[in-house]
Formats: sequence, C-alpha cells, structure tokens
Amino acid sequence: MKNNVTAKDVAKLAGVSQSSVSRVYFEGASVSKKTREKVIVAAKELGYRPNEFARSLITNRTKIIGLVMKGIQNPFYPQVLKEFTATFKKLGYSILFVSTNNDEIQKEDIDMLRNYNVAGVIITDASLSLNVTEDFKESQVPLVLFNRKIDNEQFYSVCCNNLDASEKIAEYLIEKGCSDVAYIAGNANTSTSRDREKGFTSIIEKNNMPFHKYTSDYTYEGGYKTTQKIIAEKKIPDGIFVANDIMALGVVDALRENSIMIPAETKVVGFDNIEMASWPTYNLTTWEQPITKMVEQTVNYLMAEIVEFSGYTENVEVNGELIVRKTT
Amino acid sequence: MKNNVTAKDVAKLAGVSQSSVSRVYFEGASVSKKTREKVIVAAKELGYRPNEFARSLITNRTKIIGLVMKGIQNPFYPQVLKEFTATFKKLGYSILFVSTNNDEIQKEDIDMLRNYNVAGVIITDASLSLNVTEDFKESQVPLVLFNRKIDNEQFYSVCCNNLDASEKIAEYLIEKGCSDVAYIAGNANTSTSRDREKGFTSIIEKNNMPFHKYTSDYTYEGGYKTTQKIIAEKKIPDGIFVANDIMALGVVDALRENSIMIPAETKVVGFDNIEMASWPTYNLTTWEQPITKMVEQTVNYLMAEIVEFSGYTENVEVNGELIVRKTT
Repeated sequence: MKNNVTAKDVAKLAGVSQSSVSRVYFEGASVSKKTREKVIVAAKELGYRPNEFARSLITNRTKIIGLVMKGIQNPFYPQVLKEFTATFKKLGYSILFVSTNNDEIQKEDIDMLRNYNVAGVIITDASLSLNVTEDFKESQVPLVLFNRKIDNEQFYSVCCNNLDASEKIAEYLIEKGCSDVAYIAGNANTSTSRDREKGFTSIIEKNNMPFHKYTSDYTYEGGYKTTQKIIAEKKIPDGIFVANDIMALGVVDALRENSIMIPAETKVVGFDNIEMASWPTYNLTTWEQPITKMVEQTVNYLMAEIVEFSGYTENVEVNGELIVRKTT
Repeated sequence: MKNNVTAKDVAKLAGVSQSSVSRVYFEGASVSKKTREKVIVAAKELGYRPNEFARSLITNRTKIIGLVMKGIQNPFYPQVLKEFTATFKKLGYSILFVSTNNDEIQKEDIDMLRNYNVAGVIITDASLSLNVTEDFKESQVPLVLFNRKIDNEQFYSVCCNNLDASEKIAEYLIEKGCSDVAYIAGNANTSTSRDREKGFTSIIEKNNMPFHKYTSDYTYEGGYKTTQKIIAEKKIPDGIFVANDIMALGVVDALRENSIMIPAETKVVGFDNIEMASWPTYNLTTWEQPITKMVEQTVNYLMAEIVEFSGYTENVEVNGELIVRKTT
C-alpha cells in the first residue's frame, strides 16, 4: 500500500501523543473533543488510514473467519462457501480461505490462522489430527466442524441429520419395491459416509434384506468407476444409495453407458441436492442438505463464542428432506 | 484468541523497551544479543505470540491476497480458487475471499481489502465501476484482472487469447461442414463474451455466412432457456458456439430433450473445459482455458509488484487449445 503514514506521523503533526491517535480511531476509548479535532485535521492532511491490524493489536481480535475446505470441486462446497461469505459479510466479517490438499489439516494451516488472529474457524471436509485438535483447544479460538463431527464431542459441530436421513432413504427404496440394495460409500474416514451407512443398513437389516457395500471417494470418477466394477461383477442391485450427489451422477452415467434402465432396473438416490441433481439429464432423487439452516447455526454459534468464549460443544443436527425425481 | 499477552507485557518483564520487543520479532531490525535473550526468556514465560498484524504495522504490508469472485457456481471458478490458494500458500501468502453478488464490485469490498492492508488483489468475474477504479489506482495496491480486461489498459490483466480462440472455433465449425451458425453470448458487459463474439463473427463474415446471436448469461439455466427459445422459433442452426461450458451443458440438454441429434443435426462447442465437459454424458467439444498458466502469470506479476510497485500494466493473453469431443 502507498499509505506509509503512521499514527506516529499523525501524532507529531497534531502535537498529541501516539496513544491519543489510537484512542481516536479505535472503538471503546475516550479522548477529549479538542484532541480528537487536532488528530482528525492532521490525519486528513497526511492521508492517514487506520487499519484493521492496528485495531487488532488493541482488541486482540480481527474480523476474519478462517474457513478450511478440501473438496471445492464438489459443487456442494462452492455453495457453502458462497453462503458463509454472504452471511459473514452482513456481520462485517471476512473469510480467509484455506484449501487443504491432504485429508488432514496441516499444522502450518493452523499456525497461519493463529498468526492472523482469526476470530473463529470453520472446518468443512478436512479432518483433524490429535495434534491439531490439542492446538485448537489450547488456542481458545471458537471452532465449528461443518458437515463433519468427531465422536467425542470435543468441538461444536453442525451436520445434516445423516442417520435419520439415510434410514428414510432405505425405507423409501423398500417402499418402491427394492429387495437387493447397495450402498456406495464416500471416503471411509468421514463421519458423513459412516453415518449414512449406519442409518441405511439399520433399516436393511431390520428387513432381513441382502446388502452390498462398495467403497468409493465422494468424486464423480469414483462413482463412475465403482459402478463399472459392479456391472463387471454382473450383480446389479435394484436400488443404490450413493453417499453424495456428485458420485451419484457418475453412477447414473455408468449405468446408462451400459444400457441399464433407471429407474426400471435400478433406482439411484444421492445426497446433498446440488444444482446439477435437478438438471433434466440427471433428474436425480436425492436428500436435500439444508445449507442455509446449517450455515445459520454455524454463524450464530461462532458469533456468540466471539463475544464470550465458553468452549461449549454440541453436535447439532439439522433436518433435510427427500427430493423425489426420476431416478427412483 | 486466549493470547492476551502483548509486547508491552513482555517488555515489562524483560526490563527492556517495547520497541526492543518489536525489533526481536520483526524482520529487518537489529537488536543486541543480550536484549534478544532477555526478550525471548520473558516471551516464553508469558506465552507471547507475535502476530501478523503487529508485523504489518511495521512493514505496512500483510501476506494476504484479496481474491474477488462472483460466479462461484460456475465450476470454472472453484478450480481457479483452488489453484490460486495452492500457489500462494507455497509462497507463504493467504487468500482473503470476497464474493460479490452484484456484477460490480462494491466500494465496501475495496474498503475492507484496504483495511486489511492486503499485499495484492485479484479480481475475476466482477466488474469495476469508475469510482472503484480510481480508488484502486490511488491506493497503489497491485491488482490483476483475471479472465477479464478493461479496454484502456489501466490494469494488468491475464486472459486466455479469446479472439484467436474463437476464430479457430469458427474455422473448425466451417471445416466440419456448418453453414448456418449461432453464437450464444454470456453476460453482455464481460470482455470475455465480447471478445469471443468478435473473433467468431470475424471468420463467419469473411465466409459470407448467415449468423445469429442470442444473448444469455453464462449459467446452465441461461443456456437451457435460450436453446428452448431457439427451438420454438424453429430456426435451428447447424453449429452453435456457446460462450462458456456451463451454458453449453444447458444447450446440450435442451437439444436432447427435443430430440435434436448432436452432432448430426447441430454441433455444439463450449469454452473453458470444465471437468463436466469430459463426462461421458456430455463429451463436449470445447476450448481449454489454460488455468495453470493463467494463474502462474498472475502470481508472478503480483509477487514482482509486491516487492517493488511499478504500476506497470499490460493485457497478457495466454493460448489455450481446442479439445475435440463428441458434440461436433
């Protein structure tokens, strides 16, 4: 920035102390009317611009929220990013975006967020090692896990009610006449994929139905390749629950390429309700994750913790709904 | 943050001045060995953690790059965001993400970026009003327009060579036997849509061919609805150049719904080469934008300007290539 004018320069020209300049520009500090006028005149003359960093030295806090995200190629997450950015903007907060390539958040990412004195952190689809978890606990930076949870409730988390949703999906497929179903899982280390499997299988087991599980990775290619494998094995289920939509689109494409009729021969249900699920080419039956409600819960918690850190944790689950389209 | 320990506390315990503490922690400042030791011992005892804001007060610069983006729902942009984040991370820089809802960047967005003393700014698919342009010029913050340009070369811009690319697309369609072609434009106020139209029509005119232009908006729905309109008019061109891929997918879906054979009756070419263009369902012929090269150019320029601001501007154009698939 061109602006090399400091509070010291302003103080000198105004003939007041540097701390008087600080008091004029940073909230919650009192200063006499006369001093204020002197400072403002000098600041104007010099083109002084107080900044957030200076403010943060006094308040020990910035208006930055760190947002950690991995799978930005999954269209669910750009939507999440957009909603967070818009909601925080209204509250005067900005988003420092951290993209992780690894499944796990790296120590350097956490150090960076701490160096910038972020007011809070949101972690979406990246996991936390024990080390990083301890670091966070110690730092007392308000943290929310979004669309992920850790079993021991060490952090506040906001998810869709995955267990309940996947139970309902299983019941729906049974109701539609399926008797030999499969689950295509996302990354094994994610709570979402585990919970969706758990809810789904609980109903299948209760109905004494056969069940197949295929491991995959929450990507289009993963869904596509897994389905090619299923087709090669010649054991095509009559109902497939796919752990997210982007994978489900790959499943649909692989089934079509092999002329397997959807929904006549196989029914397909996804999860998320990304925009593409509604495109006429796919018309995918799916479970809608209520992004807006999930974002709201996350922001409300963070803002409360920013005002007064309590360290309160809870696994919040928001209900979504089944969107029936033409793949079932 | 828990860390309420300030440089003042450290100075008091160490029995040195506050500026000595600053000199120990911030680069490019000298301090005696004895003082340094005193400060480090005191800092350790108190758990003092110097931060980026304090550093920025001295260097007048942070390691933050502001990235302004609008159409995050277009899969081209999450890819761009990912590449910028990864590249800057290697250089020790972080991304402050600004999402604009409006076509134009708002003054408040610029003020926010300036308040955070960002080292540089990248603007992707949002436009600049005259006011904001002046503000930027005055601030001397290095700025790059990415995938957009302003005619008067007031700023450094990095684009794909849109004119050349769209000339080649027109030549390719003619070569494939098209004799009645259409262009489906993106948002009218974007340089990309204008340049792609200009290059395309220049070749069509040279060949004395009829030409139709349809306005649309760079979204899937836009492409879909525009094509429904074309079909309703019963004047279906035998070749359609669509200004970006996400619109082209909508065009393909609308043609298919109306049983218009691709490529036999109509050929479709997109622009960007987003991941979905390669999905077997679409298999879209398109022009690949060389994101990695474009990001590289942008980062190199910004880093040079951060070291020494020159205000140098240029419209840099990077060559992409035609990816032939099954829609032509």
